[in-house]
Amino acid sequence: MVKQQRAARTRRTLMETAAAQFDRDGYAGTSLSQISTEAGISLGALTFHFGSKSELARSVEKEGRSAVEEAVARICASSTPPLRQLVELTLELVRLIEHDDSVRAMLRLERERPGTPQCSSIWLPAVDDLLQRSHASGRLRPSVRPAVMATLVSHLIAGAEAVQRCHRASPAEPVDSAVGQLRHIWQLILPGISASEASHR
Amino acid sequence: MVKQQRAARTRRTLMETAAAQFDRDGYAGTSLSQISTEAGISLGALTFHFGSKSELARSVEKEGRSAVEEAVARICASSTPPLRQLVELTLELVRLIEHDDSVRAMLRLERERPGTPQCSSIWLPAVDDLLQRSHASGRLRPSVRPAVMATLVSHLIAGAEAVQRCHRASPAEPVDSAVGQLRHIWQLILPGISASEASHR
Repeated sequence: MVKQQRAARTRRTLMETAAAQFDRDGYAGTSLSQISTEAGISLGALTFHFGSKSELARSVEKEGRSAVEEAVARICASSTPPLRQLVELTLELVRLIEHDDSVRAMLRLERERPGTPQCSSIWLPAVDDLLQRSHASGRLRPSVRPAVMATLVSHLIAGAEAVQRCHRASPAEPVDSAVGQLRHIWQLILPGISASEASHR
Repeated sequence: MVKQQRAARTRRTLMETAAAQFDRDGYAGTSLSQISTEAGISLGALTFHFGSKSELARSVEKEGRSAVEEAVARICASSTPPLRQLVELTLELVRLIEHDDSVRAMLRLERERPGTPQCSSIWLPAVDDLLQRSHASGRLRPSVRPAVMATLVSHLIAGAEAVQRCHRASPAEPVDSAVGQLRHIWQLILPGISASEASHR
């Protein structure tokens, strides 16, 4: 039992080290021997747990996907109005991008390894559904097309990741958190797109 | 004279081939011998024009910067209202990202080569200025903060590049052009942020 716990801990350490390296250096820039050194775990123990760099990358991607899937399921299960859920979902996605190495690693790996499933395939159907429901329930202004809103959301999520990555590369100037930035952006956009705000004017 | 023209043409071919490769494969994934093969120009002729991969990358970046600088200068010289200029500037930047290999290569190279000047340092001051002027002339709703608008613009530009890159990697589904998408996004956002629209209601 102690042996199993130790193995689980070793696996966890390797996954965390690999996620940080894949995120920082990309797939080509990461090697098993680097991960072994940085994790302080022998290469033999590493390859016992993960047979290859590709297998390790798949495990990190799977962990990133799980985190995103869990967030989507949790937010979509809440009883708040769909437009509120949409905003919460985007904030949660950006929170994960900001704080979860495995999510950032997954996003980088999906760009660098052709054929990897796209993370957007997890959250985009939920975004589409929430927008359709917002539209149907009259929460959006009639002129606001759900498809354009979905494009906006895709730009904001991709933009948040890119802006984050840029700040990580040169963290010279102190900036608002990615989540804080997106919250301000929504405060700017929401009054113009939501029907309820219009009726308050 | 003919010799000079031929040299200029060779240089141009090498720059174009290099821009396309840096954009597609990144700095580490590109080699002078690959560029030589793809351009159909001997490695000897290549190294006569560009002494190293780093020199070639700098030339491509410089070309990308010039294209962006020219666009910023041209749009800021027009006499349209500042908020209109801002929208035009973002559309022009995205048009360059969509159609100019040297601009996309520059954006990729600045991420992969630490210390490279950021492209946003060219257009962000113009965006800030246009937003301040829009604000001062009462074109923006009083509740709209120029700094948050600038954050939104940064997200939209970075998002447009990321979405573009993603579609280039898997061009399965036909999508609206990047410029078309951004135009729709602005049509969605502008009514909510501009004072003139509000007064029309």
